[in-house]
Amino acid sequence: MRRLPLTLLAAGLLLAGGIASAATTIPASAVKTAEQLRDTALHDGTAMAVVTSLTTEVGPRLAGSDADLRARQWALAKFKALGFDKVYSEPVTFPLWQRRSESGAIVAPFPQPLVLTALGYSPATPKGGLTAQVVKFSSLDALKAADPASVKGRIVYVDYRMHRQKDGHDYGMGSAVRTGGAVIAAAKGAAGYLLRSAGTDAHQRIAHTGVTGFRDPAKAIPAAALSNPDADQLDRVLAYGKPVTVRMDLDCGIVGEYTGANVIGEITGRKHPDQVVAIGGHLDSWDPGTGAIDDGAGIAITMAAAKLIGDLPQRPDRTIRVIAFANEEMGLWGSRAYAQKHAGEVGKFVLGTDSDFGAGRIWRMSASVKPQARDAIWQIAGVLAPLGVAYDASRPGGGGSDLSQMHARGMAALGLTQDGTRYFDWHHTANDTLDKIDPAELAQNVAVYAAWVYMAAQAEGDFGSAPGAFAKDGTGE
Amino acid sequence: MRRLPLTLLAAGLLLAGGIASAATTIPASAVKTAEQLRDTALHDGTAMAVVTSLTTEVGPRLAGSDADLRARQWALAKFKALGFDKVYSEPVTFPLWQRRSESGAIVAPFPQPLVLTALGYSPATPKGGLTAQVVKFSSLDALKAADPASVKGRIVYVDYRMHRQKDGHDYGMGSAVRTGGAVIAAAKGAAGYLLRSAGTDAHQRIAHTGVTGFRDPAKAIPAAALSNPDADQLDRVLAYGKPVTVRMDLDCGIVGEYTGANVIGEITGRKHPDQVVAIGGHLDSWDPGTGAIDDGAGIAITMAAAKLIGDLPQRPDRTIRVIAFANEEMGLWGSRAYAQKHAGEVGKFVLGTDSDFGAGRIWRMSASVKPQARDAIWQIAGVLAPLGVAYDASRPGGGGSDLSQMHARGMAALGLTQDGTRYFDWHHTANDTLDKIDPAELAQNVAVYAAWVYMAAQAEGDFGSAPGAFAKDGTGE
Repeated sequence: MRRLPLTLLAAGLLLAGGIASAATTIPASAVKTAEQLRDTALHDGTAMAVVTSLTTEVGPRLAGSDADLRARQWALAKFKALGFDKVYSEPVTFPLWQRRSESGAIVAPFPQPLVLTALGYSPATPKGGLTAQVVKFSSLDALKAADPASVKGRIVYVDYRMHRQKDGHDYGMGSAVRTGGAVIAAAKGAAGYLLRSAGTDAHQRIAHTGVTGFRDPAKAIPAAALSNPDADQLDRVLAYGKPVTVRMDLDCGIVGEYTGANVIGEITGRKHPDQVVAIGGHLDSWDPGTGAIDDGAGIAITMAAAKLIGDLPQRPDRTIRVIAFANEEMGLWGSRAYAQKHAGEVGKFVLGTDSDFGAGRIWRMSASVKPQARDAIWQIAGVLAPLGVAYDASRPGGGGSDLSQMHARGMAALGLTQDGTRYFDWHHTANDTLDKIDPAELAQNVAVYAAWVYMAAQAEGDFGSAPGAFAKDGTGE
Repeated sequence: MRRLPLTLLAAGLLLAGGIASAATTIPASAVKTAEQLRDTALHDGTAMAVVTSLTTEVGPRLAGSDADLRARQWALAKFKALGFDKVYSEPVTFPLWQRRSESGAIVAPFPQPLVLTALGYSPATPKGGLTAQVVKFSSLDALKAADPASVKGRIVYVDYRMHRQKDGHDYGMGSAVRTGGAVIAAAKGAAGYLLRSAGTDAHQRIAHTGVTGFRDPAKAIPAAALSNPDADQLDRVLAYGKPVTVRMDLDCGIVGEYTGANVIGEITGRKHPDQVVAIGGHLDSWDPGTGAIDDGAGIAITMAAAKLIGDLPQRPDRTIRVIAFANEEMGLWGSRAYAQKHAGEVGKFVLGTDSDFGAGRIWRMSASVKPQARDAIWQIAGVLAPLGVAYDASRPGGGGSDLSQMHARGMAALGLTQDGTRYFDWHHTANDTLDKIDPAELAQNVAVYAAWVYMAAQAEGDFGSAPGAFAKDGTGE
């Protein structure tokens, strides 16, 4: 934050008198082709076939598991089969966390099993489990305010209930309880950490996993999420006012380091092969489900959109780059490696965003671009409007989850918000399976991507990508 | 069936000139009290408190588990706390089946875990699991018609998909696939048995357990149910046309015999203490859930209805008997023991039915009674009509699940059909938890039971109970 004034100054200078003073525009012929791509995509089955293939043939693909390798082999083969011009991968190294087994139970006063799931980077409990008294907090703030003496040696339980929203913004708090809550509990001397799942399926005995904020294994404690009905049950048992003892039995932990890879496919630009429109999703998934909505859908949407552009009679002016990122789930490892490796080329990343919020219809577009490119964004908005996408010019672009890291370095970015009303019902659970994807909704996403990606590739002029260009948009480093 | 003509003859003789030729009627004062009970019940929280207590303090209570004993202790204490006059239990002995662990996976061609659950009376697989090729059948009939050579040594998989219905009649086939399919597969030499869960939750990775038809452990094979999305996935993998190998790893089986008990509470009749209106539910549950809808609700509805009658200024004319049956789930063990022990008293069981189809609103009543008691049934129907209960005079009564055995011996019986539209979403799964019960719907059930039970207790004349009286109604032995 202390760097912000300087960055703002740099961005201001750049926008005022930099390399990109002419207005960016999209030629009429490109607009027409984008409209055709959009309409074709609505009836194209490629994305559904791709996500079906990935979730069936590979299934769950936890970063660093055997399936991680199979997923990369799958992605390389799929890019080639779809006619991409260039297919390659770039290594990504990260801590290897494994889940081996997990169970839980109320020990007293009313013994019974609990459905829970270990969280990413949780260490194992001692053999036979960790048994301790539960201390409950209704919010992250309540935990922050807690006297460490009230927490020491106990299992901290934070009971924050997420609610369904179209834009899913309650996940901001839901994920903070998971990532930050675990760290705070550990710092206060807790023996273990439990949360009500960061999920909106109020009635399913299915727990939502996800990463914790543990960075130093020496300071980590066993951490798990209860399904919503199990959290309800624990609440009822606690309400009797007697001491409640719970056993967590987690066999999991970091066992070393693993080198996976971002897998990349390109439709090579005809005029400006070095200028890139960047899209993608992440190839890894959590292990309980088959990673259909998170993020097989993103992989499928962006592969299919680029493939439709590749099917045109001639290559687009700029390169379309689809990046299947490694290990997003345990901390944007592929994303960060990518941004670090390609930081110097950020000015060549003309426009980008990735898809990582399921397979619901896109209903909102936003953009972080230079002022002279706003008209081109309005041109894109005009092509997307028939798909039900409303352009909100007041919001920054964001760039998705993985490409947020390139955006943070100065890549111009879109934000394409999907309807996430049901997303957190299934997110990070065994229920993240193919049946949760509606083919028509998935095709709408492909239509959006095919249209805007093509228009960005054909734009006359750029969107303002330059080192540090968008730090003021709130996604800066 | 060969006994039917004789039984019909006997029933005809009985009805034509037997002990019960006078018309049965319910006095106006009893009708009025029943209406008051009905209206009071709609605002009474006893049933919800009872099912909350059972599912929270005992939780899952698989027949023969440690929790079976705790459930009986709970029931004895609860009957007493609710003011029942007589509380006792009657022993029930049954084979003790235990579930220790279960897992499954597709081994080839696309290795990935499968969500499955072992079925009641399934034996264990060998240590390390049973791995075999899958052979799929789309129906029970297709399996029946199969050449044993096509099945021998394989894992038979029957892919019957249940659909939601208000009366849940698709469970007839769903349960037949589970109970009968396993037996047929074993008889044809299969190594293992899998079915698509007999459940209507098409999108939940939660498998539905339930009993098989295995009666001779020597002829049983490992048997399990896949969750619906896992069955979808197996179907997709099979559709590639390659041999599909699955591993089932079940640690479960019969380990001996156990003696539990039916637990019984009575509101003793003032005039005819030996004449009984019989209601109840079953106290055991499957182990993955907490047995809220199956059958904590039935226990709660009938305990609460009798308690409301017990709260009246004076005891009813006849005894109200609430029976919390043992081990319904693995084959009506408590029910059969009860009927065997009390067969000689069937004429004293004036009218009965139990509640074992969840907590949805009762929408239909039917009755198996002597013709001279039809008018009294119409009187009951008149009191229940404001609750949305329609009397279908064309259907037999049935007597529920556990009291069907007394009905089969000649007890006059009602049928009270609950709305089961969602019942098979949760039935026999981890999702059978308290949050699935709507307090207002539960209270409607109590209102129905309180009203009819009281009217039956006050009826002038009987309903035709006598040995073998209702064999023609299709529920005979």
